[in-house]
Amino acid sequence: MTAAVLSGRELAAAIRSETAAEAAQLSAAGTAPTLAVVVATADESSAWYVRSIARAAEQVGITCDIVDLGREATGPEIRRTLDALSADDRVHGVILQTPLPPGVDAQEMALAIRFDKDVDGANPLSLGRLAAGLPAFAPATAEAVVRILEHHGVEPAGRHVAMVGRSTVVGKPAAHLLLDRNATVTVCHSRTRDLAAVTSAADVVVAAAGRIGLITADHVAPGAVVVDVGTNPTVDGGLVGDVNATSVGEKAGALTPVPGGVGPVTTALLLAHTVQAASTLRQS
Amino acid sequence: MTAAVLSGRELAAAIRSETAAEAAQLSAAGTAPTLAVVVATADESSAWYVRSIARAAEQVGITCDIVDLGREATGPEIRRTLDALSADDRVHGVILQTPLPPGVDAQEMALAIRFDKDVDGANPLSLGRLAAGLPAFAPATAEAVVRILEHHGVEPAGRHVAMVGRSTVVGKPAAHLLLDRNATVTVCHSRTRDLAAVTSAADVVVAAAGRIGLITADHVAPGAVVVDVGTNPTVDGGLVGDVNATSVGEKAGALTPVPGGVGPVTTALLLAHTVQAASTLRQS
Repeated sequence: MTAAVLSGRELAAAIRSETAAEAAQLSAAGTAPTLAVVVATADESSAWYVRSIARAAEQVGITCDIVDLGREATGPEIRRTLDALSADDRVHGVILQTPLPPGVDAQEMALAIRFDKDVDGANPLSLGRLAAGLPAFAPATAEAVVRILEHHGVEPAGRHVAMVGRSTVVGKPAAHLLLDRNATVTVCHSRTRDLAAVTSAADVVVAAAGRIGLITADHVAPGAVVVDVGTNPTVDGGLVGDVNATSVGEKAGALTPVPGGVGPVTTALLLAHTVQAASTLRQS
Repeated sequence: MTAAVLSGRELAAAIRSETAAEAAQLSAAGTAPTLAVVVATADESSAWYVRSIARAAEQVGITCDIVDLGREATGPEIRRTLDALSADDRVHGVILQTPLPPGVDAQEMALAIRFDKDVDGANPLSLGRLAAGLPAFAPATAEAVVRILEHHGVEPAGRHVAMVGRSTVVGKPAAHLLLDRNATVTVCHSRTRDLAAVTSAADVVVAAAGRIGLITADHVAPGAVVVDVGTNPTVDGGLVGDVNATSVGEKAGALTPVPGGVGPVTTALLLAHTVQAASTLRQS
């Protein structure tokens, strides 16, 4: 392994400590920043994630309300809940946890999250506003990609970034954030012909495809910067990325680790967004 | 010139004739498809464009209302007008013509256009819905790029497309439409380093930068397909694209002309969207 390790832990800690200071100020002024997480699944890894968000929120002084509708919840029930939370002055951030019950579309539901409480950028309006240069919250994971690069001195401007994955949660919004920072962005996906040739032409490769070990040394130019957004569960309860770190580590110039890279920054940004929403809503 | 000429005229005629048939059916059933164009400028080329839209609309049986607020119109006035048209059952399509008075943001205003009447995809919500795979109208120009390629048998799937230009009107929405059709898409712009190297790696080059003659033979691979979205006015009252057709025509495999390429397809799609909106709104 010769590639530099671009950790996300220090950046996450810095964001959390700034967020805690702002949360304390808001609380002292009578506004207790509050995040609502709507759950409609019995999925175990989802429950684990929601508990970890709640714990992280409490640690920075954000109240976290978990609204569990059960795995039998219907679309109209979920929408009514999101409408109510959007209208509730006590709530500043709203997240709709996935997966949802079969037949319920997450994007369709997320339209009911008021955009200025949409702290994980799930409402299609947030993505559209982002693309149009209007104020909006980006999905925390997409923003984490940009923040971790900038934290380690990799300015996107003028660089060619290959984004592997075109999800509405990561690939598409991250592409917009990077374009907005003057990167040239290529969006690749499962139907890309000769993926290795395309990604090897890039200065930065962002792997967000959800496929273990998809990116190998063949996919990266010597010295390239690689961001691994993958969080694939392993059989022994661990996490592994989309990048084959052993192979890529010998050729890339720098690589974010999994765990300890994009993940902690994502959680910290979710909390930062909530405090930012509380501050904005308080003034309006 | 050895490149094949990918005309948009036949496709535009086919879309217009289909649209006219649907408009006649709707009118016979008591719904006269109606497009409202809101104008707040004294710009001469804008006035010319609005008149040409109105004429094209009437030819296919669409009523076109031009709502001229004058060049002194304020943001709140424009927003109130768009709100009223969004609520008016008699109106099915709403376009906000640019330029707008200084200090009035087009994207901010377009948020007031109800998304199912947003026939030119100007509301950021439409772009977000498009990116999220939810029903929405794409900006007509962006959709025209895809339609003209498909009409001439250039399927986007698996192809590498270089989109030159990142506007919310063309570059960004066209990138989403092409991604959705399984193209690999690179978005380039004025800050792209070595544009010629990036575009030469693509199978299809879409020029939507608004710069006369930006794309030359140096920018395209031999045999590549080139779509020219540029509509730059010339001193003698003509139109010229972003592509140097003389230079590119000797190297590319195919090229859309200006005028007669993307332009007529754009106008035809605007009318097709209006009839589609009338049909959908009628059923709801």
